[in-house]
Amino acid sequence: MPALASVEMMLMELLRDIRVVLVQTVHSGNIGGVARAMKNMGLRDLWLVSPRQYPDPEASWRAAAASDVLDGATVVGTLAEAIAGCALVVGTSARERKIPWPIVEPRACARELLDVRAGGQPVAVVFGREDFGLNNEELQCCNLHVTIPSDPEYSSLNLAMAVQVMAYELRLEALAREGISTEVAWDQPLATADDLERLYVHFEATAIALGFLDPERPRQLMPRMRRLFGRSRMDVMELNVLRGMLAAMDDALQRKA
Amino acid sequence: MPALASVEMMLMELLRDIRVVLVQTVHSGNIGGVARAMKNMGLRDLWLVSPRQYPDPEASWRAAAASDVLDGATVVGTLAEAIAGCALVVGTSARERKIPWPIVEPRACARELLDVRAGGQPVAVVFGREDFGLNNEELQCCNLHVTIPSDPEYSSLNLAMAVQVMAYELRLEALAREGISTEVAWDQPLATADDLERLYVHFEATAIALGFLDPERPRQLMPRMRRLFGRSRMDVMELNVLRGMLAAMDDALQRKA
Repeated sequence: MPALASVEMMLMELLRDIRVVLVQTVHSGNIGGVARAMKNMGLRDLWLVSPRQYPDPEASWRAAAASDVLDGATVVGTLAEAIAGCALVVGTSARERKIPWPIVEPRACARELLDVRAGGQPVAVVFGREDFGLNNEELQCCNLHVTIPSDPEYSSLNLAMAVQVMAYELRLEALAREGISTEVAWDQPLATADDLERLYVHFEATAIALGFLDPERPRQLMPRMRRLFGRSRMDVMELNVLRGMLAAMDDALQRKA
Repeated sequence: MPALASVEMMLMELLRDIRVVLVQTVHSGNIGGVARAMKNMGLRDLWLVSPRQYPDPEASWRAAAASDVLDGATVVGTLAEAIAGCALVVGTSARERKIPWPIVEPRACARELLDVRAGGQPVAVVFGREDFGLNNEELQCCNLHVTIPSDPEYSSLNLAMAVQVMAYELRLEALAREGISTEVAWDQPLATADDLERLYVHFEATAIALGFLDPERPRQLMPRMRRLFGRSRMDVMELNVLRGMLAAMDDALQRKA
């Protein structure tokens, strides 16, 4: 399907060039986890600012099948180099700062990043050190700060987890822009109103034949079955199984009679 | 601020009891990563089905300050034990199945989970093994499947990352509900996972007794019934009607014998 392929291509191009910048990461495993999270979500452009250790086997192990993203990372000495040319730089921040910066949530942040990226210019999301994040100077290099909502009792996310959440929101936003429905095709057509009506008639007749439903005192039995089956968006195959089961009951009762 | 505190309390209570169930996790580090991701997002109820190794120092290291969640995990031998009493069970699934199950995205899934949880009944999200996820039998114990949108080129998320994404969506949804009435207008409590399991066992036995289901050639009959009833959010009264109908059939067959 060439149409689908080209939509996927546009999507990929929007996402793959969004820079993920990690500043002075301490644990190499986290760099690998970031590479995997990025590739899972369709991002490919990893920048490392003065990592403590790179390359490193622990990073490769955690990257799993994302070694291409890991190996393709650009290593630089300063944040300024990593964000050069970017028209929008978003810094991740867990804490309230003395001087409040514009703070957005990941969802709104993803929208802003894709707005700018779609205009053709590079954009970056910057993640700080495992222990204390980005310092004030670094945060002030950012146009915008993003904070992932978290429990005040324990608000510090693992670095790769934070990247996963941002990358996930970026992918959702890109998918929404391409108008791709992620709904799965069902394997059977849905039963129609008249199919359902025949099922209800059959169910009721069999229930009466079984002595389970007293037509003189029907109470709410059939309304409950209508509510149950009616809200289930039953497909024709499922309906046929139920009809078959009722027919088998009818046969058994007739053989008995 | 007592008002804020009590809103936070309600939020916490909704979130903290949502069960996160990990089935046969191989790498202990992932269990620790899951515990941290949960606590960061305000979830606390971790269940481990036959983990390869627990407790384990690697898990504790990755859990960081979430050791309370890790240490408080409930370890059980089967998935059925982990989801007993749950009115909504969501299974994570990366793959297309032969018989497609209702699949939702994490965002819609979080809404459904909180809808049911707000009604007062337990709910669970189930995550499979690192290498091949949940098997078909396990997936058929779930009312609903959730798939995290990912890049077809590399769609397999790390286990803890998948939990992070789901927990993040649950927290966002809970935050969005602040001040929103959580009343659920249904007349009956929902049937639980173990209620449903008993219904399936009964349905199958009666179908065999009727000669409608050949145990030597079962085909997809029971999976289709599990899919139909599983996605219907069946309440206990509806379930009782179906069980009563089956019991009436059993009686009729025995009188005949």
